[in-house]
Amino acid sequence: MNKIKIGVLGYGHLGKEVCHQIRKTSDMELIGVFSRRTFAPGSSPDPLFSVDQLKNHQDRIDVLILCTGSATDIPENGPHFLKNFNVVDCYDNHSNIPMYVERMNEIGRSHQKSAIVATGWDPGLFSLQRVLFESVLPTGNTFTFWGIGVSQGHSDAIRRIDGVKKAVQYTIPNEDLIHQIKDQEISSISSKEAHRRKCFVVLEKQADAEKIRETILSMPDYFKDYQTDVVFIDEKTFDECHTEMPHGGRVIRVGETKGEHGVQMEFQLDIDSNPEFTASVSLAYARACYRLSQEKQYGAKTVLDIPFHMLSEKPREELLKLI
Amino acid sequence: MNKIKIGVLGYGHLGKEVCHQIRKTSDMELIGVFSRRTFAPGSSPDPLFSVDQLKNHQDRIDVLILCTGSATDIPENGPHFLKNFNVVDCYDNHSNIPMYVERMNEIGRSHQKSAIVATGWDPGLFSLQRVLFESVLPTGNTFTFWGIGVSQGHSDAIRRIDGVKKAVQYTIPNEDLIHQIKDQEISSISSKEAHRRKCFVVLEKQADAEKIRETILSMPDYFKDYQTDVVFIDEKTFDECHTEMPHGGRVIRVGETKGEHGVQMEFQLDIDSNPEFTASVSLAYARACYRLSQEKQYGAKTVLDIPFHMLSEKPREELLKLI
Repeated sequence: MNKIKIGVLGYGHLGKEVCHQIRKTSDMELIGVFSRRTFAPGSSPDPLFSVDQLKNHQDRIDVLILCTGSATDIPENGPHFLKNFNVVDCYDNHSNIPMYVERMNEIGRSHQKSAIVATGWDPGLFSLQRVLFESVLPTGNTFTFWGIGVSQGHSDAIRRIDGVKKAVQYTIPNEDLIHQIKDQEISSISSKEAHRRKCFVVLEKQADAEKIRETILSMPDYFKDYQTDVVFIDEKTFDECHTEMPHGGRVIRVGETKGEHGVQMEFQLDIDSNPEFTASVSLAYARACYRLSQEKQYGAKTVLDIPFHMLSEKPREELLKLI
Repeated sequence: MNKIKIGVLGYGHLGKEVCHQIRKTSDMELIGVFSRRTFAPGSSPDPLFSVDQLKNHQDRIDVLILCTGSATDIPENGPHFLKNFNVVDCYDNHSNIPMYVERMNEIGRSHQKSAIVATGWDPGLFSLQRVLFESVLPTGNTFTFWGIGVSQGHSDAIRRIDGVKKAVQYTIPNEDLIHQIKDQEISSISSKEAHRRKCFVVLEKQADAEKIRETILSMPDYFKDYQTDVVFIDEKTFDECHTEMPHGGRVIRVGETKGEHGVQMEFQLDIDSNPEFTASVSLAYARACYRLSQEKQYGAKTVLDIPFHMLSEKPREELLKLI
């Protein structure tokens, strides 16, 4: 069998993990990692190239996985590279996804390339569950909880404060609220009451702890109006206890079929390493993207457009035996 | 908007619930229920017809939902009616599904009709989760538990014993085993240790209780080698406490992304009425079946072949905003 040839754009947490997962995946091979940064020769087990060299690898790559940042990189990288590559990404800016899909769809169609965008777990697996749950149980309410897990965005926001040396923010779901939802005591919640935020911060020497605490607690959108705890710790403790990137969460639907007859559906995810699992999900969709391109299904799709038989290494006939 | 016109074959538990759910579904309308039995005029709120009249309704029905039995009816009804109707069923004989799909696929293609077979929750939603979980987390083990819930097959098996007036069998998952799986103390289980069976039986007058208990406990495949409890109760208690049809279960995958970094995924389903929820699932797939036929995608598909955007009453553009 021909292996699916993967190129990786970006060599941060996600890019490194994608490379690692490819080595464990029997139907894929890694052609190269393409980065804006330069690396010393021999500094990595992965075949690293400058991003300028990507165009020279065009004929050797079946799918390019974008492992760059969602904030500004992917909205540029996606449209640019889709002109010459089939593309998979983990774009996670929920509100911009419709516009991004539309743009990518036009480019993919006109250049005869396939893209699957916004893979990962939220958006991604959680989006799948939300749509499935609502479709098969139209009468009800759906709730999403995140955590316990590290939010990169919130951790970054703290690190940008003057006087902060290191910081990590854990999102913690409100378990009481989850019980109340399942007991049907409440049918709507706000994100702010559903989660609390716990921040572990290492200060620079001579930083003003109370001022930094105030800056965190009053930060709009990120921490204001949330129940937020700020804990100052020393650097040794931070390095020993707070460098992992666990995450997860759950999607819960509580509804009814008729009269008093209730239905509860729940998808729960617990992951020790967010980038490793996100990489793993993106590879399943890279396989689907390759198959789309083989079937000449060009344009941009999301997880909602991909039937699950396309994700599996096993052929469909094999899956039907396990159904 | 034109409503999707649904015909229903069979008027047992499932057929009745499909009719009920259609009345709550804004993009569907019920054209008729077609049954082998005859009903007194005015005995039902649903438009009942003899099955012979189905051919006269051919042009008025977009999708026919088969609500007949999986054991012998559906394998006959499916191939027969697919020649003239788009068809959805809840065929649940796991081991025969590959052959059934192949046969239905040939008929659908040659008659330009679309079918989605083996919908429901297991096979159905559970199959989806098993394939998704394995695809996005290739290193790991998947476990399926059923219950607490009523098994119709096992209840029927008891009712066929001479001297049994009424009976119900509850399948109960082994919670200790579930904890051990999640704690990664064990990585494989047998179905027989994963569940125990609790039977509530009402005896006919002068029936020999101990003989019936022995007959149940020694029944191969159904109860032999399972931890089985048989409880004899009076008819009044049975009618008061044991006529509902709850069910559910869970699919759990325990695996790892790299080294010590674990991932756990779980889908949990709790339903008060098995036929009502199965009906609700079949309607989402009836919607997808209609859309397949509109797109001239003929032949037979399973849940693994249907992208989720086709299940929802909401248009895809609307779903992308919620992703």
